[in-house]
Amino acid sequence: MYEGVVQDLIDELGRLPNIGPKSAQRIAFHLLQADPVDVKRLAETLLKVKETVRFCEVCGNVAAAERCRICLDPRRDASVLCVVEESKDVVAIEKTREFRGRYHVLGGALSPIEGIGPDELRVRELMARLADGVVTELILATDPNMEGEATASFLARMVKPLTADGSLRVTRLASGLPVGGDLEYADEVTLGRAFAGRRKIDG
Amino acid sequence: MYEGVVQDLIDELGRLPNIGPKSAQRIAFHLLQADPVDVKRLAETLLKVKETVRFCEVCGNVAAAERCRICLDPRRDASVLCVVEESKDVVAIEKTREFRGRYHVLGGALSPIEGIGPDELRVRELMARLADGVVTELILATDPNMEGEATASFLARMVKPLTADGSLRVTRLASGLPVGGDLEYADEVTLGRAFAGRRKIDG
Repeated sequence: MYEGVVQDLIDELGRLPNIGPKSAQRIAFHLLQADPVDVKRLAETLLKVKETVRFCEVCGNVAAAERCRICLDPRRDASVLCVVEESKDVVAIEKTREFRGRYHVLGGALSPIEGIGPDELRVRELMARLADGVVTELILATDPNMEGEATASFLARMVKPLTADGSLRVTRLASGLPVGGDLEYADEVTLGRAFAGRRKIDG
Repeated sequence: MYEGVVQDLIDELGRLPNIGPKSAQRIAFHLLQADPVDVKRLAETLLKVKETVRFCEVCGNVAAAERCRICLDPRRDASVLCVVEESKDVVAIEKTREFRGRYHVLGGALSPIEGIGPDELRVRELMARLADGVVTELILATDPNMEGEATASFLARMVKPLTADGSLRVTRLASGLPVGGDLEYADEVTLGRAFAGRRKIDG
């Protein structure tokens, strides 16, 4: 319906995640009317990202070199390893400033429906990193949803032999009520988890 | 938080319409993991659009040359002119196959809040097109929302002198119930308009 190249752009944008046909059209027309300098900068950033960004050969996080900044940082505690699904989870955890260990980015979660099994994730690389016994705590920080829980359970089983002699502790992030939330609005699963995980406080 | 160029990409994507920070992040990571060929094609399409697409000098629609395909088509009825806000409205109307006249794309609607007055729209160009008296019907097909209605009212006042001798008829698209919709779900304004615009049927 549109002049060829405009339709091409709408099609290309429509392939991006969470962008439907209407959004693709809106973005395309926005770009048509935008300053050419801005569009050029976007195009160049896209190319530059693919040229310069790679994934850390140790943890799988995004990196500007062979290893990411966290793996290169000698102040990070190599004995605590936090397993996450995606690089964006690393950013979320870093923002809390609660964690000074290292990461392992799986590249997703197990999902039989989408055909994602252990071989599609960086599971073999995780087992290799645990082999030398430096890591003493493995934090399974996959998402608190079905796929994330399944992935955590799977990994817990995989590393079980390493925990037998007490040299490795496996933990999972706490589930419970979100801070700042209203108890009455919590879904029942979350509220149930919050009860199950209740802790003694000293009054 | 991210390696520089990844953050640059998130920032660039976040400037697009209807893309919030979370979506920008999701798209950026999608692109990081995508086939470089696909990302290159997207970048090249962006550049090509800005290089090749312009706006028709007659009607303001997107065009691959000085004039758009519709203005160049001699079979289109030059006596009926349909005023729309955006090029995407042209596409929507073309899909109906109900209209064989020509278009005038305003480039938006009047919006005092966003600082869009008549000078920001192609109003002067519209008046110039009406000057030679070829157009006998002007269809005001701006959006049926507050800005679109205000724009239609404004244009109707502007062209009023041309309608005095009966040489120009000004019309507005019908408002009413959407076809295929449920009456009970229609909002009261739409239902009110549907009543006001009711037509006699021959049984």
